[in-house]
Amino acid sequence: MLSHTERTQIRKAAHKAVQEPQALYDIIDESLMAHVAICDAHGPVVIPMLAWRVDEYVYIHGANNSRLIRHLKQAEQSCLTFTLFDGWVLARSAFHHSAHYRSALVFGPFETVEDNAEKDRVLNHFVEQIAPGRTQDVRLGNDKELTATSVLRMPLTEASVKISNGPVHDDRADLAVPAWAGFIPYRTVVGPLKAAADLHESVPTPDYSAAYGSRWVK
Amino acid sequence: MLSHTERTQIRKAAHKAVQEPQALYDIIDESLMAHVAICDAHGPVVIPMLAWRVDEYVYIHGANNSRLIRHLKQAEQSCLTFTLFDGWVLARSAFHHSAHYRSALVFGPFETVEDNAEKDRVLNHFVEQIAPGRTQDVRLGNDKELTATSVLRMPLTEASVKISNGPVHDDRADLAVPAWAGFIPYRTVVGPLKAAADLHESVPTPDYSAAYGSRWVK
Repeated sequence: MLSHTERTQIRKAAHKAVQEPQALYDIIDESLMAHVAICDAHGPVVIPMLAWRVDEYVYIHGANNSRLIRHLKQAEQSCLTFTLFDGWVLARSAFHHSAHYRSALVFGPFETVEDNAEKDRVLNHFVEQIAPGRTQDVRLGNDKELTATSVLRMPLTEASVKISNGPVHDDRADLAVPAWAGFIPYRTVVGPLKAAADLHESVPTPDYSAAYGSRWVK
Repeated sequence: MLSHTERTQIRKAAHKAVQEPQALYDIIDESLMAHVAICDAHGPVVIPMLAWRVDEYVYIHGANNSRLIRHLKQAEQSCLTFTLFDGWVLARSAFHHSAHYRSALVFGPFETVEDNAEKDRVLNHFVEQIAPGRTQDVRLGNDKELTATSVLRMPLTEASVKISNGPVHDDRADLAVPAWAGFIPYRTVVGPLKAAADLHESVPTPDYSAAYGSRWVK
């Protein structure tokens, strides 16, 4: 079960709260992109970052000298938010229009991954997640690159998941309004592969579709 | 031109910074979803919110008694971040793997829209944006609903836009690595319409595809 803390308590539409860890993992694994915030004297700054899961940690990375990375290393607490937008819900009243989505907020301090071999392991896990088999083909990280790269991780112990996927909700009186009601679904499609301009024609085209299931388009 | 302040100065990969306001408008108009942060004693909390543009303001809404809305009303400064993920960039080295994306950060205080007629106008603008013509069909907001709904707006004067859409970048020495290199594009497809379970079969199906251009699927 995902841990209950004050920050993870969902107040609005609590029936949309989801407790199974697998729901959290699925959202992170599908999204691979999160938003993080820096809170400073000027106010908040919200920044998108690639983020991926290995077992029960979520990882981010960046250059050692990145202002964002330096801030997150020393911040006592951080928040990583993953959101997948699934479409519009069109009700018979303007007021009850809403959206379908899946969101996950993960809280905690970031820990720095110090060891280059461990950084390499988790970074390669990310490459494999988006392009299965690719770490066999590319030139992997060397010491200089790994030393220059900061990899931070957050455990998945304090998180909240909210999923909105329910029926259209209309007030009873509005059921008589003769408007169409229903959903406009949003779906992400991935592919097909597009070769780099300088790719030699002798290089065979790989198949990474296994990472994307039904989202893959040829 | 988007205004230059310390917060909007893009330091990393400054060549990806974009100055034209239309780029900002396009990202907001396509995304319609942003992340906002609350900074409190426990640390930051990053929350997804629907957000839409009317002329040169971006709007959000929520229930008056929502903790998030109450916080944003009194916060001196806020940040709304819109991000569109466009795919993976696969280089011949692990180190140079990256992503294509379009992102926009808008900064400022939120102003509360007090007048119910104005709230109605901008909320209906949002309905029209996702379903053109629909405000002619649905029951629009009544006084009770509008009074219970907070609508906040932020001017689009302090913003920064960063777009990553360039070629695969490899170190010269890695050009000899015989790995495939290129892109895995991500695309959002919208539709087709899915009727609510309780929709009477006599209700004709509308056509909202004009809002989605090439993203619409029948």
